[in-house]
Amino acid sequence: MKKDRIKIATIGGGSSYTPELIEGYIKRKDELPIGEIWLVDIEEGKEKLEIVGNLARRMVQKAGLDWEIHLTLDRREALKDADFVSTQFRVGLLDARIKDERIPLSHGVLGQETNGAGGMFKAFRTIPVILDIVKDMKELCPNAWLVNFTNPAGMVTEAVLKYGNFERVVGLCNVPIGHNMRESQLLGKTVEELQFQYAGLNHHHWHKIHDKDGNDLTEKVMDAIYENQDNIMENIKFIPFFEEQLRDLGMLPCGYHQYYYLTDDMVKKELEEFATNSTRAETVKKLEAELFEIYKNPELGEKPEQLSKRGGAYYSDAACELIASIHNDKRTDMVVSTRNNGALSDLPYDCAVEVSSIITATGPKPINFGKFPAAQRGLVQLMKAMEEVTIEAAVTGNYGKALQAFTINPLVPSGKIAKTILDEMLVAHKDHLPQFKEAIDKIEKGN
Amino acid sequence: MKKDRIKIATIGGGSSYTPELIEGYIKRKDELPIGEIWLVDIEEGKEKLEIVGNLARRMVQKAGLDWEIHLTLDRREALKDADFVSTQFRVGLLDARIKDERIPLSHGVLGQETNGAGGMFKAFRTIPVILDIVKDMKELCPNAWLVNFTNPAGMVTEAVLKYGNFERVVGLCNVPIGHNMRESQLLGKTVEELQFQYAGLNHHHWHKIHDKDGNDLTEKVMDAIYENQDNIMENIKFIPFFEEQLRDLGMLPCGYHQYYYLTDDMVKKELEEFATNSTRAETVKKLEAELFEIYKNPELGEKPEQLSKRGGAYYSDAACELIASIHNDKRTDMVVSTRNNGALSDLPYDCAVEVSSIITATGPKPINFGKFPAAQRGLVQLMKAMEEVTIEAAVTGNYGKALQAFTINPLVPSGKIAKTILDEMLVAHKDHLPQFKEAIDKIEKGN
Amino acid sequence: MKKDRIKIATIGGGSSYTPELIEGYIKRKDELPIGEIWLVDIEEGKEKLEIVGNLARRMVQKAGLDWEIHLTLDRREALKDADFVSTQFRVGLLDARIKDERIPLSHGVLGQETNGAGGMFKAFRTIPVILDIVKDMKELCPNAWLVNFTNPAGMVTEAVLKYGNFERVVGLCNVPIGHNMRESQLLGKTVEELQFQYAGLNHHHWHKIHDKDGNDLTEKVMDAIYENQDNIMENIKFIPFFEEQLRDLGMLPCGYHQYYYLTDDMVKKELEEFATNSTRAETVKKLEAELFEIYKNPELGEKPEQLSKRGGAYYSDAACELIASIHNDKRTDMVVSTRNNGALSDLPYDCAVEVSSIITATGPKPINFGKFPAAQRGLVQLMKAMEEVTIEAAVTGNYGKALQAFTINPLVPSGKIAKTILDEMLVAHKDHLPQFKEAIDKIEKGN
Amino acid sequence: MKKDRIKIATIGGGSSYTPELIEGYIKRKDELPIGEIWLVDIEEGKEKLEIVGNLARRMVQKAGLDWEIHLTLDRREALKDADFVSTQFRVGLLDARIKDERIPLSHGVLGQETNGAGGMFKAFRTIPVILDIVKDMKELCPNAWLVNFTNPAGMVTEAVLKYGNFERVVGLCNVPIGHNMRESQLLGKTVEELQFQYAGLNHHHWHKIHDKDGNDLTEKVMDAIYENQDNIMENIKFIPFFEEQLRDLGMLPCGYHQYYYLTDDMVKKELEEFATNSTRAETVKKLEAELFEIYKNPELGEKPEQLSKRGGAYYSDAACELIASIHNDKRTDMVVSTRNNGALSDLPYDCAVEVSSIITATGPKPINFGKFPAAQRGLVQLMKAMEEVTIEAAVTGNYGKALQAFTINPLVPSGKIAKTILDEMLVAHKDHLPQFKEAIDKIEKGN
Repeated sequence: MKKDRIKIATIGGGSSYTPELIEGYIKRKDELPIGEIWLVDIEEGKEKLEIVGNLARRMVQKAGLDWEIHLTLDRREALKDADFVSTQFRVGLLDARIKDERIPLSHGVLGQETNGAGGMFKAFRTIPVILDIVKDMKELCPNAWLVNFTNPAGMVTEAVLKYGNFERVVGLCNVPIGHNMRESQLLGKTVEELQFQYAGLNHHHWHKIHDKDGNDLTEKVMDAIYENQDNIMENIKFIPFFEEQLRDLGMLPCGYHQYYYLTDDMVKKELEEFATNSTRAETVKKLEAELFEIYKNPELGEKPEQLSKRGGAYYSDAACELIASIHNDKRTDMVVSTRNNGALSDLPYDCAVEVSSIITATGPKPINFGKFPAAQRGLVQLMKAMEEVTIEAAVTGNYGKALQAFTINPLVPSGKIAKTILDEMLVAHKDHLPQFKEAIDKIEKGN
Repeated sequence: MKKDRIKIATIGGGSSYTPELIEGYIKRKDELPIGEIWLVDIEEGKEKLEIVGNLARRMVQKAGLDWEIHLTLDRREALKDADFVSTQFRVGLLDARIKDERIPLSHGVLGQETNGAGGMFKAFRTIPVILDIVKDMKELCPNAWLVNFTNPAGMVTEAVLKYGNFERVVGLCNVPIGHNMRESQLLGKTVEELQFQYAGLNHHHWHKIHDKDGNDLTEKVMDAIYENQDNIMENIKFIPFFEEQLRDLGMLPCGYHQYYYLTDDMVKKELEEFATNSTRAETVKKLEAELFEIYKNPELGEKPEQLSKRGGAYYSDAACELIASIHNDKRTDMVVSTRNNGALSDLPYDCAVEVSSIITATGPKPINFGKFPAAQRGLVQLMKAMEEVTIEAAVTGNYGKALQAFTINPLVPSGKIAKTILDEMLVAHKDHLPQFKEAIDKIEKGN
Repeated sequence: MKKDRIKIATIGGGSSYTPELIEGYIKRKDELPIGEIWLVDIEEGKEKLEIVGNLARRMVQKAGLDWEIHLTLDRREALKDADFVSTQFRVGLLDARIKDERIPLSHGVLGQETNGAGGMFKAFRTIPVILDIVKDMKELCPNAWLVNFTNPAGMVTEAVLKYGNFERVVGLCNVPIGHNMRESQLLGKTVEELQFQYAGLNHHHWHKIHDKDGNDLTEKVMDAIYENQDNIMENIKFIPFFEEQLRDLGMLPCGYHQYYYLTDDMVKKELEEFATNSTRAETVKKLEAELFEIYKNPELGEKPEQLSKRGGAYYSDAACELIASIHNDKRTDMVVSTRNNGALSDLPYDCAVEVSSIITATGPKPINFGKFPAAQRGLVQLMKAMEEVTIEAAVTGNYGKALQAFTINPLVPSGKIAKTILDEMLVAHKDHLPQFKEAIDKIEKGN
Repeated sequence: MKKDRIKIATIGGGSSYTPELIEGYIKRKDELPIGEIWLVDIEEGKEKLEIVGNLARRMVQKAGLDWEIHLTLDRREALKDADFVSTQFRVGLLDARIKDERIPLSHGVLGQETNGAGGMFKAFRTIPVILDIVKDMKELCPNAWLVNFTNPAGMVTEAVLKYGNFERVVGLCNVPIGHNMRESQLLGKTVEELQFQYAGLNHHHWHKIHDKDGNDLTEKVMDAIYENQDNIMENIKFIPFFEEQLRDLGMLPCGYHQYYYLTDDMVKKELEEFATNSTRAETVKKLEAELFEIYKNPELGEKPEQLSKRGGAYYSDAACELIASIHNDKRTDMVVSTRNNGALSDLPYDCAVEVSSIITATGPKPINFGKFPAAQRGLVQLMKAMEEVTIEAAVTGNYGKALQAFTINPLVPSGKIAKTILDEMLVAHKDHLPQFKEAIDKIEKGN
């Protein structure tokens, strides 16, 4: 029985993303009969929670809505009878991300906080916490949907499905939305005039584009990328992929494929950022500090313009749209991380994939994709295997498995360097890796 | 480049279904910018073509539309530059269907004109013709979509995909629409308030039902079937399946599963029809004669009420909706026969399946279904194998393969009886089975 | 650590097959360092156990061996530290088999004690007992191998793998040995001069034959079958399959395929046996009584000739060869029921299949087979699904599942007749079907 | 019909390996009724062919055999009516291999002449030639077996299967034999006392070891590797893999996995070789020159000891054993490259895999392996995809596809460096890459 008014809980409610989330709910006020929004955070995030929570209240008030905004450090209270739970927390905060990025770079290796060494450590820190949340959800709100946009979103989703044995989970990412916007602009069309089909894994997918007459425009986008480099807007010059390789793919890669297809340039670029203390994590940390200053302004009653520079734009809006689609069986076409069940024939039946799906009242229904061409198939299969091993390491705290994951990750050169980075990161993050205690003790004794 | 006005060709245009088709187009006049409709038939169907063609013209005129209705015996002229081609022909006309049903029944065996011995012979007669049509289409209108509702729709679709090497084909059936209507009525809801997911093969699929809050109502439909037998309307008492077996399925079978789940009752029922010359084919033949008398009425300017008793109700309307959905990228959720590509994990990757799909400008995109429970899996895998062998027999005229198909078809008892029926039907249909000439000669000599 | 002398326990040791088993061990005395053989039976089988046990002792003595033969009703004592456990018991004895065959035949339906209605009931009675034995084995002799030749051997093996979670199990059947012998005779060759490859399920497999030069002789066997019908020995006229259908298969079916490919003849033949009280079960019962009279002869010190008429010839010898092959890593090529693991691509990864395998110290290693032609594929997939549903019914006692299994079994006509036979058999076997108590009570109350 | 005396043709007969091949045949003279051996080479190899051919004649004579040894530059004459064709040629000779290794190393990247940039170029040069040979074989000796040990053996085998449409091909490698010998030595056992099961791709496989009692000794080998490093013989210190990672694999990798698991060390080692002009290719070139001096000695009538240092030891012997096994249906357990057909569930059905197989008169029958653990699965799937793309590039001469293969190959860093190496190698090898003419012209014009 559907309730008259719904309750939404957001874990990591003190995040700088929250105003976009609130804005997204407000935008959908006619289709989302919200009763209560619970913003949850931990002791260390209490101050931020207060700041952002008050902004949220001002936004709701300005919109003339009667929604209750609750701020709490008691997660269980927030989860009780929730209809939707969204997660946007960061274990160890941005300081942990700085380590995720800088430690590998100090060895000349990409950190890459979603699929590289950094992303694996984010998985190690996050997965035990998300499984704990799921345990609470199964007790306190078993019919709620978990909408996760904590990275690495694909691995987190798979961990919830496989180890949490909880089916009502969806992983979200803003990367596809960005592609849709940039590429429709390249084609001189609106997003609505086009049909995008995505398939792959979180931050590791490819897509095709058709128009409403059924014409394949994928090649046209490639033409536009290579022919008009000088005339197109700055923010569209995003793919310096080699033209011959891209043409051979026959599909458009995602932005993160720069790490896999143009590794040398990416290493060079990130080492420069490392040298100037302007890695993404450091940049974001500064941006966030500025954002919270802005959020404090008691006059502010809406999402400030500056948030759009934060990088996660559309993330929260996607979450709101997902919630509205599930709630109303809207059958929207969205790209989400969900259980494969054969939609991508080349990947394990029970793993999480990121794929164009119809969002229904019973969750995402992947549009069947089938088989990849060989070049995409091999890479995505390796990435999935790396994810599986990483998740297992995160759950068990097994050092050998963590080393295995590092060894096969294509963003981490294998051998001594992989082991060195792994050991250094384990020690650096030890406060957030209780499951690896034994391994960390051994490393520390060895030093 | 999309044309301003579209051209639709209908093979078998003299069919009694045509008025529903025309009505369907008229209903969608605002979204379907039709320029020309070409009704094609063969010499033997010339008179019917004239009758139904004139009715079509009156209907269009009454609707105040400027669409051209062309009647022709020249298929190639009709196909030239067509945008959509629909097929509704019956090789050998209803007299062939009468044989399809009566010959097996004369041996106490179900004819079943779609998946039984009758259906296999319909495939033998139809597939060479459809492949010929496809050959013409590849030459004369390679970008047109072939919308097939000639039975056996699944086998015909697979033949076009595999042997015609033509991808732009969709098979259609009215069975799912009938289920949607009856079961929503059983639940006291409208079709629009429910979400149906179908998976399987043409005339051999199962489905699940959810409401818009995500609740699974499949069990509720079963409750309604068994609890309210006496109070529900006559036309809903369609499933006397054993309750325990149906409950174990966990999905709703289609009407045609009566042949597989309740074979003894079905044989009994059809033998009675056989004895009274009221097999379905004979009944339909009478109905059609009556219909054409009605169609002749020069005052008639719309689809007559009597057509709804014909049995194929909604078929033509579904075809119109499919055409409108492809033309306008409507993303409608329809149940169609299309290439599997992994949507149903238990069936071959490249076969045709019947599955809930999103209809887009690039054709149907199956909603991924995944794996069946064991009981459904085994039957549907057998049926698909039978279809494959039947199609190969139809294409090659190989007698051994035809006997193989008869042997494994669960509706045909295997052994001497299968061979006897096969031989008798080959001889009876010899005028329409040129590919089996050698085998038929041998049988006739043997007699 | 391998022991100097091995212990073998035989459940159902009082079986008439035991002398062949003992003979098989004696024949392999140089490769099988047997210390103890334990023949176990239940109270009802005590007398037979004594008779056959004493014969076994005389056989061993005559062979000049020091092996201990233990007779016991205490299964746990027999299992303790065993190295091999063979099972050849029949729950409900031959009287149960008579019911398995006669009840369906009384409705004009094949009983078929391995894959038909009879076989399903044998599975219902046997699987709970075998799972109980496995439970004991995991406690008392976890490293022992379970060599099962209790029918239905494939379903029993799958039950042990899936529900017993015990990997050290092999199912055995004498059907392939019989084919090897008859077909090599047909070709005028010895079995050793040929290479047979089998694939499928227990009593539902096909095979191909090559000679040692790599020539495919499968077609030659078919030639021999059809060309020399009159000249070949009586016992080879076993396949009156239709030649065209067999040629189309491209593989040789097994004897049991008569039930599937020639159902009408088989029904006729068995109804005659039914009418004359000479069903296979009744015949065997008489044969067994005679055999035990012979076994009683205190002068008899070897397997009597008459046992070869029993029908299970080679079964026990195959078991001895299997044991010797595992014990000595002989790498013999045998056809066994074992876990699929992808050897037959068309069947579930984790199911039991019957397939040519290399028998090693770590058990059978299936020779990869790959995909079947469509006609074989469909049937074998249906049979596997039927087996899965039957096993689940056997384990759970769920009536709906049992009815489902009956409904999809191709040897049982579906509908009222299936339900009638199911209900009658449940009641008839109720003493051996404790798991179905609730369902049986309901049926009995309904009557 | 098998011939009395068989004819064997060896393409690349002037290779330094030939004496081992001849020795292998002589060793098997009782089971291989050889009539003629044809050594074929090209004009540039004429002198070597003479030298090695004369040594072969002296070896055969010394063994007292009447085999004819033919030396020829006419490949078609050699292939005519051959029973076995072995290939051991190197397009571009060792100078091409020097380029394969040194060009990538000049950019700090591994050349790796089998799976790295060097191996891909070897594939580009070799595949068109092997397809040409296969074309001749289909005409001149369609029933002969092609035994290929030209590297990259896996890709060459797959090209013959997929693009040559020729099934009678087996790829061979000596790596598994080396593992068998070293690891049995580590365990203090003979190879015959152990059972090895290999699965993967050529130069990219893993294996497990059991003893004849069925005990898994894989872990024991790992123990031996790590516990006794100091006491074991020099040539066994081959795996400095990280112990934790190796333990997690649960299988033993092959020697070539050093390139994937210990990339940094391998790069360092090879850069040292590069700097001192002692890359493997350069070393082998010197060794070969010395070998041919030795071969010239008219007194020499057997394989000289020095050949064993050449590195390909056992390769030719394996080829002889394979030929003897096929000829005699020996059912030997060998590790070969052959069509997958589902033996390795994680790889495409129709690709070539390297897997433990039973060698029969009808060729290799893979022992079913099933699924890999995730860490192996991901890598081997990527490697297979890389192979597929490389083969397609070799066949088509498509530059984009070649760049794609370089981009996804885990031994080649992606980005500018990959393109630079690719372009440089294309130009360097242009005489042997006619299919890439267009691309090479473009590169040269661009410079």
